[in-house]
Amino acid sequence: MTSFADRHIGPDETAIETMLAAVGHPSLAVLAETAVPESIRQDDVLVLPDPLTEYGALSALQAFAQRNQVHTQMIGQGYYDTITPMVIRRNVLENPAWYTAYTPYQAEISQGRLEAMLNFQTMISDLTALPVAGASLLDEATAVSEAVLLMRRAVKDREGGVVVLDSECLPQTIAVVEAHAEAIGLRLEIQDIDAGWEAPADLIGLVLQQPGSTGVLREIQDVVAAAHATGGLVTVAADLLSLTMVKAPGEIGADIAVGSAQRFGVPLFFGGPHAAFMAVRDGLERQLPGRLVGVSVDADGRPAYRLALQTREQHIRRDKATSNICTAQALLAIVSGFYAIHHGPDGLRAIAQQVHNTAVTLADALTAAGVRIKHENFFDTVVAEVHGGADSVIARAAAADINLRRVDDDHVAMACDEVTSLDILHHLVEAVTAVKRHAVYTAPRVAIPRSLRRTSDYLTHPVFHQYRSETSLMRYMRRLADRDLALDRTMIPLGSCTMKLNAAVEMAPISWPGFARIHPFAPSNQTAGYRDMIAQLEGWLAEITGYAAVSVQPNSGAQGEYAGLLAIRAYHRDNGHAERDVCLIPASAHGTNAASAVLAGLRVVVVATAPDGEVDTDDLRAKLAEHEGRVACMMITYPSTHGVYEAHVGEVCAAVHDAGGQVFIDGANLNALVGLAKPGHFGGDVSHLNLHKTFCIPHGGGGPGVGPVAVAKHLVPYLPALRQTIQRPAELQRRGAPVSAAPYGSAGILPITWAYIALMGHEGLMRATETAVLAANYVATRLQDAYPVLYRGPGGLVAHECVLDIRPIAKATGITNEDIAKRLIDFGIHAPTMSFPVAGTLMVEPTESEDLGEIDRFIDAMLVIREEIAAVERGDVAAVDSPLRHAPHTADAVVSDAWDRAYSREQAAFPVPGLRQDKYWAPVSRIDNAHGDRHLVCSCPPVEAYAAEANE
Amino acid sequence: MTSFADRHIGPDETAIETMLAAVGHPSLAVLAETAVPESIRQDDVLVLPDPLTEYGALSALQAFAQRNQVHTQMIGQGYYDTITPMVIRRNVLENPAWYTAYTPYQAEISQGRLEAMLNFQTMISDLTALPVAGASLLDEATAVSEAVLLMRRAVKDREGGVVVLDSECLPQTIAVVEAHAEAIGLRLEIQDIDAGWEAPADLIGLVLQQPGSTGVLREIQDVVAAAHATGGLVTVAADLLSLTMVKAPGEIGADIAVGSAQRFGVPLFFGGPHAAFMAVRDGLERQLPGRLVGVSVDADGRPAYRLALQTREQHIRRDKATSNICTAQALLAIVSGFYAIHHGPDGLRAIAQQVHNTAVTLADALTAAGVRIKHENFFDTVVAEVHGGADSVIARAAAADINLRRVDDDHVAMACDEVTSLDILHHLVEAVTAVKRHAVYTAPRVAIPRSLRRTSDYLTHPVFHQYRSETSLMRYMRRLADRDLALDRTMIPLGSCTMKLNAAVEMAPISWPGFARIHPFAPSNQTAGYRDMIAQLEGWLAEITGYAAVSVQPNSGAQGEYAGLLAIRAYHRDNGHAERDVCLIPASAHGTNAASAVLAGLRVVVVATAPDGEVDTDDLRAKLAEHEGRVACMMITYPSTHGVYEAHVGEVCAAVHDAGGQVFIDGANLNALVGLAKPGHFGGDVSHLNLHKTFCIPHGGGGPGVGPVAVAKHLVPYLPALRQTIQRPAELQRRGAPVSAAPYGSAGILPITWAYIALMGHEGLMRATETAVLAANYVATRLQDAYPVLYRGPGGLVAHECVLDIRPIAKATGITNEDIAKRLIDFGIHAPTMSFPVAGTLMVEPTESEDLGEIDRFIDAMLVIREEIAAVERGDVAAVDSPLRHAPHTADAVVSDAWDRAYSREQAAFPVPGLRQDKYWAPVSRIDNAHGDRHLVCSCPPVEAYAAEANE
Repeated sequence: MTSFADRHIGPDETAIETMLAAVGHPSLAVLAETAVPESIRQDDVLVLPDPLTEYGALSALQAFAQRNQVHTQMIGQGYYDTITPMVIRRNVLENPAWYTAYTPYQAEISQGRLEAMLNFQTMISDLTALPVAGASLLDEATAVSEAVLLMRRAVKDREGGVVVLDSECLPQTIAVVEAHAEAIGLRLEIQDIDAGWEAPADLIGLVLQQPGSTGVLREIQDVVAAAHATGGLVTVAADLLSLTMVKAPGEIGADIAVGSAQRFGVPLFFGGPHAAFMAVRDGLERQLPGRLVGVSVDADGRPAYRLALQTREQHIRRDKATSNICTAQALLAIVSGFYAIHHGPDGLRAIAQQVHNTAVTLADALTAAGVRIKHENFFDTVVAEVHGGADSVIARAAAADINLRRVDDDHVAMACDEVTSLDILHHLVEAVTAVKRHAVYTAPRVAIPRSLRRTSDYLTHPVFHQYRSETSLMRYMRRLADRDLALDRTMIPLGSCTMKLNAAVEMAPISWPGFARIHPFAPSNQTAGYRDMIAQLEGWLAEITGYAAVSVQPNSGAQGEYAGLLAIRAYHRDNGHAERDVCLIPASAHGTNAASAVLAGLRVVVVATAPDGEVDTDDLRAKLAEHEGRVACMMITYPSTHGVYEAHVGEVCAAVHDAGGQVFIDGANLNALVGLAKPGHFGGDVSHLNLHKTFCIPHGGGGPGVGPVAVAKHLVPYLPALRQTIQRPAELQRRGAPVSAAPYGSAGILPITWAYIALMGHEGLMRATETAVLAANYVATRLQDAYPVLYRGPGGLVAHECVLDIRPIAKATGITNEDIAKRLIDFGIHAPTMSFPVAGTLMVEPTESEDLGEIDRFIDAMLVIREEIAAVERGDVAAVDSPLRHAPHTADAVVSDAWDRAYSREQAAFPVPGLRQDKYWAPVSRIDNAHGDRHLVCSCPPVEAYAAEANE
Repeated sequence: MTSFADRHIGPDETAIETMLAAVGHPSLAVLAETAVPESIRQDDVLVLPDPLTEYGALSALQAFAQRNQVHTQMIGQGYYDTITPMVIRRNVLENPAWYTAYTPYQAEISQGRLEAMLNFQTMISDLTALPVAGASLLDEATAVSEAVLLMRRAVKDREGGVVVLDSECLPQTIAVVEAHAEAIGLRLEIQDIDAGWEAPADLIGLVLQQPGSTGVLREIQDVVAAAHATGGLVTVAADLLSLTMVKAPGEIGADIAVGSAQRFGVPLFFGGPHAAFMAVRDGLERQLPGRLVGVSVDADGRPAYRLALQTREQHIRRDKATSNICTAQALLAIVSGFYAIHHGPDGLRAIAQQVHNTAVTLADALTAAGVRIKHENFFDTVVAEVHGGADSVIARAAAADINLRRVDDDHVAMACDEVTSLDILHHLVEAVTAVKRHAVYTAPRVAIPRSLRRTSDYLTHPVFHQYRSETSLMRYMRRLADRDLALDRTMIPLGSCTMKLNAAVEMAPISWPGFARIHPFAPSNQTAGYRDMIAQLEGWLAEITGYAAVSVQPNSGAQGEYAGLLAIRAYHRDNGHAERDVCLIPASAHGTNAASAVLAGLRVVVVATAPDGEVDTDDLRAKLAEHEGRVACMMITYPSTHGVYEAHVGEVCAAVHDAGGQVFIDGANLNALVGLAKPGHFGGDVSHLNLHKTFCIPHGGGGPGVGPVAVAKHLVPYLPALRQTIQRPAELQRRGAPVSAAPYGSAGILPITWAYIALMGHEGLMRATETAVLAANYVATRLQDAYPVLYRGPGGLVAHECVLDIRPIAKATGITNEDIAKRLIDFGIHAPTMSFPVAGTLMVEPTESEDLGEIDRFIDAMLVIREEIAAVERGDVAAVDSPLRHAPHTADAVVSDAWDRAYSREQAAFPVPGLRQDKYWAPVSRIDNAHGDRHLVCSCPPVEAYAAEANE
């Protein structure tokens, strides 16, 4: 019967024959042998279980899910049970049109998700009362870390100053920020903050948590003023739901607000993925880390969205970057935004009110039963004083299937959320008092002091009011999705992004309650299914990469790099080489590499690239000599970002090792290696993987991502520590710093990768890799006469992607790689990667999942475009008048009665006949990026902006 | 907090105020009081539970599902466990673009689902080796019934002849056909069929089941020949999966093949919904019951799909109809078709081979253990001889969570399917032999005699080969869905069809294993959850309609009518009035009414309609007098099909009762009554409901439907009998004839309606009804100056729909209601009902789910269209040259460089500005229906047909 691998891999046997014939190799095996240098080739099979069927994989995951226990989750600590409205779950979270989309760098085909992210930004901005919010960060702990960095950048002339962290910050936040501060040599102090707090004179910034980790609501206006008085800045870590009732950070003078949007409809997921947020006051917007959606205009003057101020970002600034944030949590931010649209301000306030009433009722019932409640003022969390009885209280609650939080021996916290029912309060009173009794329920009151109550409006934009009926919301979701191109309609041949199939069977389990409704700090006896699945997955990933161990904790590739680099630094330090702080990075590397190195406290030294695209070994030797004794590591990508298997990678690794450095092999291109070669065997000490590339986690329109870090045996102790709930041999114990708030990072989406590997097995994975390499070589072969292929490796072959050089065309005709990218939209095809790793090029990665028909559709489009370029070359049409420069073409433009272009409407719209029946129409024409950066608008514009346009 | 009712009902309070102001009534209550005649108004509240929240409803349904036990299902008997590929489940079964679509009467906006149904027809035609297959029937039992009727029509000059039913037919098939034969006075005999069978001289037709109900495969070629020799016809009821290995009905000379496509990926669903199929030989195609998709051409000569030979159907032929089939099982047929596309012929054959191997291995293991196997030749079902031990064998198997079928005391059947694992065979050997032992597994062999093995090809069309990778299949599904307009993009204001929200929360539970994987004949101790839910639902529906009891067994509204009419006939017969066989039906009734009456053995007498649209009471009295003593019943629709609350409905009911007749109130328009009036209280003895109209089951592109029958107390005993697994008082015991194969009909989708009622409660349901009435009156008010509203009831109000009279326009300008319907497509709006109940009209039903914005979008479109008509009136443009006549406009046409129309491209494409950014483009222009009927093509045309067009 057809195996899953045959479903996952696009070309069937006949197609593979055709492609091999075009490339001129007799078999996949010979092709792979020719392409991959013998020195690195793996000759044994991957030790993985036999592949499962779809049915088998679902059954196995069901068994894992059933071994997780879904209890009433009252642990809180930044994670709350929530109700994902089914209309959102079905039409967004479970809809490939949303989850298979790529990051909206090609803004014209991303207007739907950009609008959805702008809604999220508007929601955050409104609720925090700060004017500019970004399109999500990875989690609350790293968001605080980013806020600390932001404050350090923004406060000038305070070198060596201190950042103060409120002791009421969440414990996981404190752990992540401390590790980060240590890495970059930033002074950090944890202090109890109360009304009488005195700001240090050299204060860079203060981070407050409100409500505090113990639930307390404090008057912090004076504290903010005190911090400002010294010239320091203030960040408030806030609870989004509380902001519907409690004064917002912006209203008490905070400069920055951060937090998690999880409880706005995103399941607990055993810790993630969830969207964190950051909002800033005017003047700090150019300091914001991560993606920011802004409003600009298109070539016809229509309002249009795109990512704003990209020059801030790591892919542009590299080692000058102020953050390594690349992946965001786009899909989850979108879900949270829709949650606010679904409920509207009144609905959100009603939910908050209900949650607050539950907490107050609980507090009063406990008080009536003689229990002392720690804080008078709180929003949703009640802390009971239990005099050494915390463990027994928690055990009694667990017997009623309720999870509470142990604050310390004497205190137990009970966090209420939108799911908490009054019906269970008597269990809590019983658990605390150890006496069976009827709880006394009093009339609700408000436990928020008048001075802290919010009176200002929020979510006043019509988008938060007009989709209150399910029908209208469903259609709004469909309309937005229809404006975008995702994998459900076209190949996305983005070099270095590996946009492959996200199979429905892999996606289905993530919404099951046994995976979705588990709190990250639930007792380990309730999470055996998750932990066993993760242990198995970490083991498989280690086997595939040839390393000793893997940690799935990092929430993105960039965090995986950061975690790996922290491990390298700690290793050197433990070996008496704290002075090793140089990180060598080839000029062609992903910008994130450099940004992560800086964030890990390393100095970046760039190694030149030779004309053939490989590492310039002479320059490498020179740099190693120059920095002798200071080299911590070298970060290389393999296959290189030029899309070739560099022949002398072994030589490079050896040179670094000889110099006492460690080798970090970026796993971005692992899709060219799985089953063929193991980075841990050909020289790597560390790699990070991108589960959202090679291992089928969908890109979600820009996130979530998962970036596990894999290390050789000597580095295992430096992997992120976690409560050792996975049994390991002593030598594999981990004691490294945490890089994410949750122990297993984005655990909720790990079933996707587990399923992929379980379904494929060794044979399937290897065949996928070989097919991906074949597909890239097929594209290179078919297109080489039209567009020069810039780099080739052994046997004249590329690896899993190829770089097409558009510079000669640009020079001759003025037609740029951007023109080609935008013209592809008219064909209903997503553009390849533009200008990476070389400006003026297009990098094409077809992946193994695209069938020959779709690959040929892309090639045919590129050849038709080449003909259009030829017309410019011949002088038949000027570049500025060509369909390439005017692309993409909206229906509005093509249908216009005032058509006056140098080419026909039919050429504009239907450059190939297949488009006449099923055509994707770009909703906007080419977007003016500079305009948007000059006139920054990062929240929903007033409706009149559109109305004016529509009436034109 | 916002209630579910507020999500379900489109207009919010402000919108309702606006609409009330337009209509001129102060409140919903006053509007309802004015519209609904006082004589029928209900003054008490519906006794229903308090409305649940989304979360509460899901929890309650989860509790029901958990009380159903998912066992290994080996009962067979026409129902098999199957694996729905997740790509199909997610992208079709759980995708509103597919399930919220309407029946494809508007072919231009239905090309996607029409292609999917054509794929189903091609699959059936190929597998049965018969040239013409329809687009699905309701279930296998009724499909056999339809085949019997077809044979009776097709065999001329054999009045009083006999139909022979193979004793190997499924028991539920025999029960349904017997009841039907009795109703229409057809002679039916059940006979054992073997090679020596002798055909009766007056044979109308023979129905064979192959494999037989006991699994046996027989040589039936000679039997077929014997039947044909007498001039009779032959129907073979076949198992679709077996046809990949066993000679097809068409290959052994059968005239007709029927069966169920359930095991092609459609869950067991406790009995339904599943798609049944029928295929016929050349010459019988015009006799086919139900929908048939055919290929025609559009105005530009492009191949285009539409429903073929509609003149056969009940809505055209009325009492001359040969079948009452209206609803089909479109969504399930589409799922089965995609299952075949996913697997392809090789994959299906491999599945069949695996199933057969499992069965053979089981048979051999049993033989080795000393058990006698009844049949030497079989496909998937093994019958063991157990000598009086059937009950204990079944009990032992049940202890291992395996369900078997009790054939009789001495025989137990074990049916294998694609889920059956060899791992459980030892349990079966143990269960049969009562001895713990290792089963002996022999090498697989083939238990199909060589003469019965299939050697011919099937599924050779490219569609069954080119979408084998998930990526390509997912995109094909998206492409098809995008060609269509469903509720996820536009209101579907179809009068009499009540296209309201199908909420995601209602839809989600149907895929849960606890509902999806239950066999209809599972032991009742495994189905407590289902049965309790159904009992509650039947009770709620009885409360809402004011009847004593409800049966959910009928699989469609038409079957509900049939069941109700059978009950009436049985009641008269039991009261000594077998001679009462006249069914009075108003001229304006749904065609199905008349067709169902004929199928229940009644004579239809038409009662005239008065000019005001109400029943002509004078004519009614005349007809009652004329047929004195013969009147069985009158069928009326309330509110009438003219969309008004007829004031003298009580008078009509009384007149019929006085004449000794029963009153059947068609529940098609129940959406105007729920919470306001109960048909069971204002004169009805019977009603049928359409759960896919008023009660939120989606239309699925033409099915499934559910048509419960509700009856007054004196008719309860005549409701369909079922094994009395629901406890009832003795006086409510049911002993009527079955109308569906499964005891609870389409049980699998009943959670949808349960959830709807549980979420809405009395207040919500009543408010929905009032809002639906308001919306219709708002449309009538806003449009009345442009288009006369043909009928109005009390207070000048319409009910929940209104009829717009286009005849004056047509007379004056030549612009028809069809032109308007097709022009609406250019606005991205689905047309209202055309020419029902009055030719030349449009009937508009907005329902309560559409918000004011969408209703106004429709109204604005109609007003713009009225302006376009005015241009024709003024003579500015000829009707034949107008955008109305050329509608719908494809992108291809509008972009064409050769545009030479009398109006501009922009007028064609963007008659209102909102279309410039988000526009639905019809994939074909207006379709030529007559052409398709003249040149009948009902399976996938060769690819060249499209290629030729695309290259033009």
